[in-house]
Amino acid sequence: MVDMVKRVAVLGSTGSIGRQTLDVIRAVPQRFSVVGLAAGKNMELLAEQIREFGAELIGCPPQEKASDKLKSLVDIKNNLLSLEEIAGSPRIDIVVIATSGKAGLRPALAALRVGKNIALANKEALVSAGEIVMREAKKSGARILPVDSEHSAIWQCLNGEQQEAARIILTASGGPFRQLSSEQLAGVTVEQALQHPSWRMGKKVTVDSATLMNKGLEVIEAHWLFHMPYGRIDVLVHPQSIIHSMVEFVDGSIKAQMSCPDMRLPIQYALSYPERLDNPQLPRIDWSLVRRLDFESADYDRFPCLRLAIEAGKRGGTCPAVLCAADEVAVELFLAGRIRFSDIAGAIERTLEQHQPINNPGLEEIETADVWARETLLKIEGGAR
Amino acid sequence: MVDMVKRVAVLGSTGSIGRQTLDVIRAVPQRFSVVGLAAGKNMELLAEQIREFGAELIGCPPQEKASDKLKSLVDIKNNLLSLEEIAGSPRIDIVVIATSGKAGLRPALAALRVGKNIALANKEALVSAGEIVMREAKKSGARILPVDSEHSAIWQCLNGEQQEAARIILTASGGPFRQLSSEQLAGVTVEQALQHPSWRMGKKVTVDSATLMNKGLEVIEAHWLFHMPYGRIDVLVHPQSIIHSMVEFVDGSIKAQMSCPDMRLPIQYALSYPERLDNPQLPRIDWSLVRRLDFESADYDRFPCLRLAIEAGKRGGTCPAVLCAADEVAVELFLAGRIRFSDIAGAIERTLEQHQPINNPGLEEIETADVWARETLLKIEGGAR
Repeated sequence: MVDMVKRVAVLGSTGSIGRQTLDVIRAVPQRFSVVGLAAGKNMELLAEQIREFGAELIGCPPQEKASDKLKSLVDIKNNLLSLEEIAGSPRIDIVVIATSGKAGLRPALAALRVGKNIALANKEALVSAGEIVMREAKKSGARILPVDSEHSAIWQCLNGEQQEAARIILTASGGPFRQLSSEQLAGVTVEQALQHPSWRMGKKVTVDSATLMNKGLEVIEAHWLFHMPYGRIDVLVHPQSIIHSMVEFVDGSIKAQMSCPDMRLPIQYALSYPERLDNPQLPRIDWSLVRRLDFESADYDRFPCLRLAIEAGKRGGTCPAVLCAADEVAVELFLAGRIRFSDIAGAIERTLEQHQPINNPGLEEIETADVWARETLLKIEGGAR
Repeated sequence: MVDMVKRVAVLGSTGSIGRQTLDVIRAVPQRFSVVGLAAGKNMELLAEQIREFGAELIGCPPQEKASDKLKSLVDIKNNLLSLEEIAGSPRIDIVVIATSGKAGLRPALAALRVGKNIALANKEALVSAGEIVMREAKKSGARILPVDSEHSAIWQCLNGEQQEAARIILTASGGPFRQLSSEQLAGVTVEQALQHPSWRMGKKVTVDSATLMNKGLEVIEAHWLFHMPYGRIDVLVHPQSIIHSMVEFVDGSIKAQMSCPDMRLPIQYALSYPERLDNPQLPRIDWSLVRRLDFESADYDRFPCLRLAIEAGKRGGTCPAVLCAADEVAVELFLAGRIRFSDIAGAIERTLEQHQPINNPGLEEIETADVWARETLLKIEGGAR
């Protein structure tokens, strides 16, 4: 058992996952040292974090306004760095990629390229560029340690098994609108969409959870992380969010990982792996309160985003990147009150229909597809109004 | 991955676990060779099994009647052997101990002594003589591979973990009388007690499941197999028998093992470990049918056998051996219609109360306690009638 202090960089340290990562490190400080911190928004909080942890490798957006503001708030010893510079630095042992959207992709690759493990909370990197990311990891032998609760669950269940899984069962809370009819879904407000029944998360992922796009993106992630054909990944709705996912083996045995819905556990597991750390702040399941667990099939008709995502994943090439980018813009339009909840799927679907996919795309082709998808979705929705 | 054929001995081959072990081997015959077979009853079936598998090391009760009968039914090449001789033979790689009652203890020790792994379906060996059995295994480095579905589940969940469990959660179906009041329990008939809601098993263990004595014995087994203090073993009633047990780790993460209630899976896992084998005959969970899993606390008042077993386990010494033997006789009296269902616990408790426990007992002291307990229980119950 290695008892050394791991030197951690947290990219996206002021977001929901970033802050919870620092909560974990506060709870077990003897095992981790926060050497790198980067954030795109909330320079006040970033400055506080830098002071608290004495981090030395700092990143913030290159625009003068942000960096001037940060420098006015805290004394920065070195030059500000790009996310890629921090991720690739030999002074870091593990990089937590908690940035949102496509910002996570290049730093993820920078870390993997030099053989550094990454704790990946950013879905878009694997969804948009799964083939490239996995190839880079394979080449250097670096590991991608999942932070998503579902993928962490699968990873924990695979621990110690000699053979690959026969089937992955990704559980889904079903979101806040699990029981609404298609008609009711059309009238969902932004406020309603931002109230998730079991998880506390950022706005974008909360809306994605309500449309089940989030689950669709997770299917694509699972495909890449666990080398699993789409036909062997099932989605199972489990409203209580106690079982975070399951793995079925060739002999029919299933392992499930459970915990209270709290992102600090998968974050800590990714940081502490292969060990587990005793963190009294993490909640324990009280079985006298959890008296039943329910399961139901996912409804691909009422929640077309789930179907769209799996189809884009199966089609491959630049399609998942287009899916991701189109979803990001569609959710922004919904949050801005410009489209209805039930319009999100349609807008993404029309964008995908107009896309000419490129197979085995390089990084630039993926980024071009991303930009194209954003523009196309805006055009489609602009024209509809 | 070792691809050799494992040479198996099945002790108790005509009982429920023995027959299911042979079913597993029939389904994946390329991986196993049945070299040893032994049974105490049903010489007709034993003879058939010997013919089918071409087993060469054969055991049956030493009385002339049984061995003459067996010899009249099938051609036995060698002399008949004792269970210990088969278990210790260098021609066997793994010994499945599927005998009932105390008959499993000495062959288990014989196998462990020569460093041979045992697949242990017999509860009494570990419950009565846990310290001796574990010491023998430790000395030789042999492994005790659990066949009970609960212990197999725990073992599977611990697979690949670096640290010991923080807590073991043994699930219990609750038996057929889970919802009966104490008054109703008094009137339970033999026929009712033999109808288990989820498992098909032998008579003794079916009654033990109805009294929850079986779960109590499993707590003691888990204590020995996983070096787990009694204070960190919980019993949780889960009527569907889908989750076969769970393990909680220091970080609050729980792993659960699930499968359709079918003993062939844990039997196969013990035989194939560390591999898993694709056996199409094993049932798979259909989540569209398993729509909910329920949990409730175990009721130690209505099911006093559970409490008695855990108390005997904590007290240690010869107490668990007395518990086991007294239970065996009490269940026989119940099956014979001589005592009521609700008298089983009282008879065992009075026997335990009269016992003068010996600490760190040797094998002979355990066997003496066993005989004493049987006589004492019969005396108590004889006097009561």
